[in-house]
Amino acid sequence: MAVRLVRDCSVLEVPAAGEVTVAEHRDIEIADGQIIAVRATGEPSKGVGDVVDGTGLLAIPGLTNSHTHSPMVMFRGAAEDVSVEDWFNVRIWPMEVNLTPERVRVGARLACAEMLLCGVTGFVDHYFHADQIARAAQELGIRADIAPTYFSSSGAEGRAAAFDAVDAILALNDPRIRASLGPHSTYTVTEKDLRITADHARDLGLKVHLHVAENMDQTRSSVERLGVTPIQVADRTGVLDAGTVIAHGCGITPADIEILAPYADRTGVSSGPKGYLKHALDPVTPVRGLLDAGVTVGAGTDGAASNNTLDVLEAMQYIALATKQQEHDVMALTISDALRIGTRGGATLSGMGSTLGALEPGRRADIVLVDLSGVHCRPVHDPRAALLYSARAISDVHTVIVDGLLVVQDHTLLTYDLQEILSDADAIASELLDLSTGGAIQHYAP
Amino acid sequence: MAVRLVRDCSVLEVPAAGEVTVAEHRDIEIADGQIIAVRATGEPSKGVGDVVDGTGLLAIPGLTNSHTHSPMVMFRGAAEDVSVEDWFNVRIWPMEVNLTPERVRVGARLACAEMLLCGVTGFVDHYFHADQIARAAQELGIRADIAPTYFSSSGAEGRAAAFDAVDAILALNDPRIRASLGPHSTYTVTEKDLRITADHARDLGLKVHLHVAENMDQTRSSVERLGVTPIQVADRTGVLDAGTVIAHGCGITPADIEILAPYADRTGVSSGPKGYLKHALDPVTPVRGLLDAGVTVGAGTDGAASNNTLDVLEAMQYIALATKQQEHDVMALTISDALRIGTRGGATLSGMGSTLGALEPGRRADIVLVDLSGVHCRPVHDPRAALLYSARAISDVHTVIVDGLLVVQDHTLLTYDLQEILSDADAIASELLDLSTGGAIQHYAP
Repeated sequence: MAVRLVRDCSVLEVPAAGEVTVAEHRDIEIADGQIIAVRATGEPSKGVGDVVDGTGLLAIPGLTNSHTHSPMVMFRGAAEDVSVEDWFNVRIWPMEVNLTPERVRVGARLACAEMLLCGVTGFVDHYFHADQIARAAQELGIRADIAPTYFSSSGAEGRAAAFDAVDAILALNDPRIRASLGPHSTYTVTEKDLRITADHARDLGLKVHLHVAENMDQTRSSVERLGVTPIQVADRTGVLDAGTVIAHGCGITPADIEILAPYADRTGVSSGPKGYLKHALDPVTPVRGLLDAGVTVGAGTDGAASNNTLDVLEAMQYIALATKQQEHDVMALTISDALRIGTRGGATLSGMGSTLGALEPGRRADIVLVDLSGVHCRPVHDPRAALLYSARAISDVHTVIVDGLLVVQDHTLLTYDLQEILSDADAIASELLDLSTGGAIQHYAP
Repeated sequence: MAVRLVRDCSVLEVPAAGEVTVAEHRDIEIADGQIIAVRATGEPSKGVGDVVDGTGLLAIPGLTNSHTHSPMVMFRGAAEDVSVEDWFNVRIWPMEVNLTPERVRVGARLACAEMLLCGVTGFVDHYFHADQIARAAQELGIRADIAPTYFSSSGAEGRAAAFDAVDAILALNDPRIRASLGPHSTYTVTEKDLRITADHARDLGLKVHLHVAENMDQTRSSVERLGVTPIQVADRTGVLDAGTVIAHGCGITPADIEILAPYADRTGVSSGPKGYLKHALDPVTPVRGLLDAGVTVGAGTDGAASNNTLDVLEAMQYIALATKQQEHDVMALTISDALRIGTRGGATLSGMGSTLGALEPGRRADIVLVDLSGVHCRPVHDPRAALLYSARAISDVHTVIVDGLLVVQDHTLLTYDLQEILSDADAIASELLDLSTGGAIQHYAP
């Protein structure tokens, strides 16, 4: 179902800098999955593909979830009201012993369905059995950049297997599916392995995606053990230079920001404060400082085991509010900043900064039509504020187009049977929480 | 449309203290608007009224919005990315010059519709033209406790008019509509007026509802000017003793909590951190300290001009997350705490603590059926976590019963034509933002 025209919508215009604006009564013309024109509504031209009626809807650039572990939707709600240490060591890492390729596939399908219905057109993933995630993304018609994850505790074979998984994703040769290198973190992967991974990334022309300075405790612990911060570890191992998606970065210091700045053309940070607040982290990602240094920031939900949703609209709201409070400055993150982070920012972190993230001629047609007519958005004095602070994913996401193809129409997923996805997930939900086998995939002691 | 039975639902059991639990396959039997039994699903008994099918739905106590200015939905999105001072002095208070009884009625209807569709069955309001809010609440079938607001700058006549408005609400003689005394705040109302108001409240057997210590700047300014905190002002004027809903209280100090504790049977605090973060307030309400001192806390959205929604489910989530972070303790506010705040806490602040806030025999039947079957809630390992951290108002609020009457069924408002409410609001939206008249209803200089 290729779309050739979205007719008579409002368009959220997200420039690389400055104020986000809304243009009314626009037609978005699409050919071969690419936006070829955004113009005042006129006579529909002829051509191949569907015309989507955008009347009364706001077209926004497809949102990118710039850091997630998508199959972890299977653990949603299974690790609540616990410390960071217990979250890892008592709940999640023991449960992840139960992962199998089939179970990861089922979880990834559920996650892709949730994301599409939330207006997320692409995600930057970091998990095990990555080939299964890639296949699920293909089945559902969502973009993905997937980093097969490994710990150094799994030895050279673990690292090699993760590299092989990258090759397997590349072999799919699907322009919507990308791969990155996925060492777990600076505290679970040795500097030797980080160096090897950074070199391998450079050889393949791929990015690295890993957890760095997730919280300030990790930064303090790193300085105590090694004399340097996690960002410095990523720097001296060549990870920053290779080009990297840094997940979380709540423990990034002002001096770290100066280290990051020279790599700003290829290295950025994904932030998702909902989960940070939930884990009582203070500070959260220094988003304002990063933006001021020219470092790209994206909105990421992390896995649903900590964030409970894969909702990027919600993540943008939390970024705006947590940053305003942290900086003690209402202007520290404006509506325009937040909307840019969820669109252009995420697109850049997914490696598609020049081809996604804005509704402009020449970019790929990843378009979400949002309905701001709900009672909770009215009256709409400012559609940008309504989008960020009043609208909700699911109920207000009307239509989703990925690479010019219609994947959600009138709140309905077109690409896969949603009921089958849900019942498949329910069928294995309790098996994944079973701790009777014992053991854990890793131990948290950063 | 009186309901006599909600059949085969799950029930959220919210005790006065301790863990919130979920009981499955329950029938809730109702007679004359009162819950008379909650029992294992069995044969439907005969009687007068409708049977509501609760299959697959979670029945929760109706949520209470424990502090709002409902007609301010008309200013939603009209005061973004501005400081607290500019929010008051450049945007809202100049705009409120445009308030008329008719415009307040239109706004209140919109607010009541939004709240009911969000699962809010009662609200504690604080605004001008309060009689119009009362009539809107009656029209929509939602509970309200309304405090007609005044500033001392409007003189003895302003105060007398607000007291008269209380009498007018009481004269409605509607058990679902209550009144409180509504001096604006400790910084806009003189101590003399606060004393008169507290005495009047005691005479009438009503509560006071006002803004106290909205932020720590106000507390510092009060100490500088008067040598005492805003809470001490409320204490020495008899406001706390009369029984009070304290709005916000982000500037409540540890010493203030000790002052509040002896009044805990009649004085509590409403908190809504979404707006506090948006206004860069740090700290937010000391919810954990208040609860530890036995002080009731409710969830309140404030007006939509700051909070952008009237969504109590969202407010509970922000209370949980902001409190965990502020206390640097993931256990500082558990899921059970948060759910209790939005249900029992709010009911208590609305003056209905013994008759609302839990689904127990003897209490009034304010019941919300929530649908946790959406893709964003699945799998449901823990329905309490799904409710607090994954579910969304609007899309997941299926059915709403207030005082035994069906007001929302299958996401549809039954009591009023929603399209009429929305078009009435759109028709006057720009008039309310018109600043050409000049002036302001008050000046912010706490």
